[in-house]
Amino acid sequence: MKVAIIGPGRVGMTLAYTLVLKGLVTELVLVGGNPAKARGEAMDLNHSLLFLRTPVKVSAGEIADVAGSEVIAICASVPMTADLQDRNQLAAANIELMRTLVPAAAAAAPQAIFLILSNPVDVLTWQALRLTGLPATRVIGSGTLIDSARYRDALSMQVGIHPDDIRSYVLGEHGDTQFVAMSLAQSGAEPLDDTPARRKLFSESTAAGFQVFKLKGNTCYAVALAASVVIEAILLDEKRTMPLSIAINGYCGVHNVCLSVPVVVGRGGIERVLQPPLNEAEQAAFRRSAAAVRAVIDATGVADG
Amino acid sequence: MKVAIIGPGRVGMTLAYTLVLKGLVTELVLVGGNPAKARGEAMDLNHSLLFLRTPVKVSAGEIADVAGSEVIAICASVPMTADLQDRNQLAAANIELMRTLVPAAAAAAPQAIFLILSNPVDVLTWQALRLTGLPATRVIGSGTLIDSARYRDALSMQVGIHPDDIRSYVLGEHGDTQFVAMSLAQSGAEPLDDTPARRKLFSESTAAGFQVFKLKGNTCYAVALAASVVIEAILLDEKRTMPLSIAINGYCGVHNVCLSVPVVVGRGGIERVLQPPLNEAEQAAFRRSAAAVRAVIDATGVADG
Amino acid sequence: MKVAIIGPGRVGMTLAYTLVLKGLVTELVLVGGNPAKARGEAMDLNHSLLFLRTPVKVSAGEIADVAGSEVIAICASVPMTADLQDRNQLAAANIELMRTLVPAAAAAAPQAIFLILSNPVDVLTWQALRLTGLPATRVIGSGTLIDSARYRDALSMQVGIHPDDIRSYVLGEHGDTQFVAMSLAQSGAEPLDDTPARRKLFSESTAAGFQVFKLKGNTCYAVALAASVVIEAILLDEKRTMPLSIAINGYCGVHNVCLSVPVVVGRGGIERVLQPPLNEAEQAAFRRSAAAVRAVIDATGVADG
Amino acid sequence: MKVAIIGPGRVGMTLAYTLVLKGLVTELVLVGGNPAKARGEAMDLNHSLLFLRTPVKVSAGEIADVAGSEVIAICASVPMTADLQDRNQLAAANIELMRTLVPAAAAAAPQAIFLILSNPVDVLTWQALRLTGLPATRVIGSGTLIDSARYRDALSMQVGIHPDDIRSYVLGEHGDTQFVAMSLAQSGAEPLDDTPARRKLFSESTAAGFQVFKLKGNTCYAVALAASVVIEAILLDEKRTMPLSIAINGYCGVHNVCLSVPVVVGRGGIERVLQPPLNEAEQAAFRRSAAAVRAVIDATGVADG
Repeated sequence: MKVAIIGPGRVGMTLAYTLVLKGLVTELVLVGGNPAKARGEAMDLNHSLLFLRTPVKVSAGEIADVAGSEVIAICASVPMTADLQDRNQLAAANIELMRTLVPAAAAAAPQAIFLILSNPVDVLTWQALRLTGLPATRVIGSGTLIDSARYRDALSMQVGIHPDDIRSYVLGEHGDTQFVAMSLAQSGAEPLDDTPARRKLFSESTAAGFQVFKLKGNTCYAVALAASVVIEAILLDEKRTMPLSIAINGYCGVHNVCLSVPVVVGRGGIERVLQPPLNEAEQAAFRRSAAAVRAVIDATGVADG
Repeated sequence: MKVAIIGPGRVGMTLAYTLVLKGLVTELVLVGGNPAKARGEAMDLNHSLLFLRTPVKVSAGEIADVAGSEVIAICASVPMTADLQDRNQLAAANIELMRTLVPAAAAAAPQAIFLILSNPVDVLTWQALRLTGLPATRVIGSGTLIDSARYRDALSMQVGIHPDDIRSYVLGEHGDTQFVAMSLAQSGAEPLDDTPARRKLFSESTAAGFQVFKLKGNTCYAVALAASVVIEAILLDEKRTMPLSIAINGYCGVHNVCLSVPVVVGRGGIERVLQPPLNEAEQAAFRRSAAAVRAVIDATGVADG
Repeated sequence: MKVAIIGPGRVGMTLAYTLVLKGLVTELVLVGGNPAKARGEAMDLNHSLLFLRTPVKVSAGEIADVAGSEVIAICASVPMTADLQDRNQLAAANIELMRTLVPAAAAAAPQAIFLILSNPVDVLTWQALRLTGLPATRVIGSGTLIDSARYRDALSMQVGIHPDDIRSYVLGEHGDTQFVAMSLAQSGAEPLDDTPARRKLFSESTAAGFQVFKLKGNTCYAVALAASVVIEAILLDEKRTMPLSIAINGYCGVHNVCLSVPVVVGRGGIERVLQPPLNEAEQAAFRRSAAAVRAVIDATGVADG
Repeated sequence: MKVAIIGPGRVGMTLAYTLVLKGLVTELVLVGGNPAKARGEAMDLNHSLLFLRTPVKVSAGEIADVAGSEVIAICASVPMTADLQDRNQLAAANIELMRTLVPAAAAAAPQAIFLILSNPVDVLTWQALRLTGLPATRVIGSGTLIDSARYRDALSMQVGIHPDDIRSYVLGEHGDTQFVAMSLAQSGAEPLDDTPARRKLFSESTAAGFQVFKLKGNTCYAVALAASVVIEAILLDEKRTMPLSIAINGYCGVHNVCLSVPVVVGRGGIERVLQPPLNEAEQAAFRRSAAAVRAVIDATGVADG
């Protein structure tokens, strides 16, 4: 199974290493703006083979070398400087970057599923959809999967239950307007009540990504591991549920924007979009997210058709 | 980490093999009524070491050799003959068997957690509790975990979602009165409606265990794998949620009987008993299960204190 | 990846469970003489899905249902009664069994690789080759892989080194004439000297399989796990080295018989036959094995062309 | 099982992530010169918990917080600038760094096993031994494990065999004087002849680490994965053989220096030092390595007692 990673920077390479370590791929192509560095990364991964059960062939290549990939992860981004305040500040430059990368990748691998990790992810996922004309089931943004992970980890500490058994979803924008659908949260068939302590945990976990960025200059491990779980669900046709950013088509009255909702992920990409019955406040929050993402799309002139 | 398996028959040995294959144990003791056979089983497992990453020492022993075990799985049972119609037919003979095995094991390994797999499991778990005087957190029956697995696998086929993401629990007796708490069933934050098709699936999955028994003369793989998941949650302190049979202390008005409810499993055994808000019909079903198990306890003269 | 198991008895089913547990297959077909039992076994495995990461579809079927399999494991055998003294006593009856199963399987799945586990394995592998006309690279007997495992496990205890790092091979017949190539044995680049204590260990480990059979009435765990390692090497194209039974074509002067030598196993089956430089005594032992297997082939009238 | 990583830079953090991903630790402490960055790294890893089976607690701490660790990995190093030509250029500054870190860590965790990854690794391992007075079995340098991996990966491509089955060891200095013990190299009991093509592969693989450094500015994946394999062998008491840097006590006439030879690694650290019978040329090469490392030790004034 072949996967391509476009943008072998901190997140892209951590993802590459994770895929190799988990034995999920037999072929991995790294496409980077600095070909020498990408070659070095490929060599470093190839030196791991003694310690791996499954043989894997890692190479550095051009966009054309993504041909035959079943999944293409887009991790390319302009650098994030220390004074970054908001993912949306990256929008204009990363939109430009996508324009040169995504259509060429789609042309080389027309059957591939695209997983967008670059930010602002909802805007870029929408743009990738427009640029490629691919069906919405095959253009996916990592969205709030990582935010859900952070919140569930925090809740896990609070309630003493494994985060995988805490079924609570952060939905909407991978950004400031995201919200947690507490009205539906459950653990072991017990509802998780919407308490002030849990609201506080949510605020903290929403801020946690940015805090990690401030402390270490990037975030890479959790986000790469999350992305590997999406790719695993695709390659092994696992039909797992998770919140991911996809084109919304009427849910809560929202159209023409990508936002995170729970979906089922399998060999075909998004195999089904779930429709959780949000309460009124949650529906309003979802529409606020839609407006926020739409505003960036409009402001940056991403084509709509 | 040391585990003991008392009763290395079909289920016990499949569990032993599973624990070894998963690398969950460093020491495994098999205690059987036929010591020569147990010695053969231990040898067979020890011949697997070349193919395993983690070294493990498997031995056959007496009850006294369970000393130092962190978990003791009770799989001993009188034989199930082809004309068996109901797990409760095994009650009298297996109650007798428990009397000779469980107190001796508890004396040898007073810190161990007991996992009862023999049937009728709810009756035997209650008896094990009485015989040992151990806290209810350390005497656990496999209960409806396997029934939940069968139903979730069946639902998985119907809805196209991985069974781990179908959060639906079969509760009550591991027997004819079990029921599924459909009012709380969810998948990816979407409620799973209580439809006639799903009721039919549930009836079929309740019958499936017995059907496997009729077709092949036993059931071993799913039940052993389920038990390995409980043991893994204990040994690795995973704090996983799952339905298991434990002493009920007031839930739905039930007392003095073991039945399956969702619990949190970790290093301490049952770390928390969850309290799902069942609807009226489900509560009534839970009480029917209690009455059914209580009737067998009373009829077979299991001491109550 | 589809695998078929013909003969879902004790070894076949342990192998089936192992493949499912390791996540090596996406489709598994069980073909048995007792279709009801095979259906029960398939149901039992399907009830495990909740506890598995990778979805797998297990079914019971006819020979024709092996179509599309990448590997077909032949585990069918007449029953082994308690008074069995030698695997060769099974020869006549199992040769008959192979005649009805193997050509039909090869017709249904002409691209499959055959892994023979039934005994006497060297004779049956030779017969399968004759019956199917397949290239020798795709008809493999489990041979002395299990004997090597037993000996390496025993040596491991003696020298305090993981058996995977004890590179010592039992070669020749999977039977009484097998021998260990001590002149080539190494561990961590240190030769393993040929001492009387190690000779004794070898005699004991050769006898160990039969001892397990006498104690428990069968052997299943180590042999099934060994077979799963062969199948894993094929499916994941691992290019692993291990001793397996294949048609010998001149090595040590031997022809027209199947015996175990070290080979490289990958996607194509046997990708390379290694030629360890045995010393004189070892070469003579290899020729004794050849004569022993040839005698059974001749006595049972397996066709030679 | 608790592990501490001192120096959570590129290699240290890749090792941390690997240990977490493999489920090898339940507690992980990161000790860094930049506490804010270490805190960010710990947060990033803690956000991965949803995606992990085994719960793990990652924290940033002071040297004193290594207390209770079973293994302490020393990855601290002064920065490697782009003009670096030789690991020995780092000697003086890293020796100074060790002086402040290693004795304090040994005081806090007197039972721990030390694994040194910083360079020049043979010099620093010798120094760590002197500084702590610990037995040689508990002060280990990663040495030529990574060089062996690179060479075996390269040979693997050439001969079409999994690198784990290519038993060939690079010994001596983790530096320019390292050599491969081709006289003992084997694969599947077949000797690997010492051909010019394989000599060329060895030269290339010796240069490969430096080449990766030149291309990407560091090496991290293969070296961290190699280190995780050592730590796994310790924590799980695997008794694996591998070449590691330890104090040499007479082998090939060498004394008072650390160099890589094949050893057995288990719960006690180095459980046994193997004595491969090198040929004359290889013995001379081993002595050249000893002289090279000794020269750096003498030049940098590392105390000898």
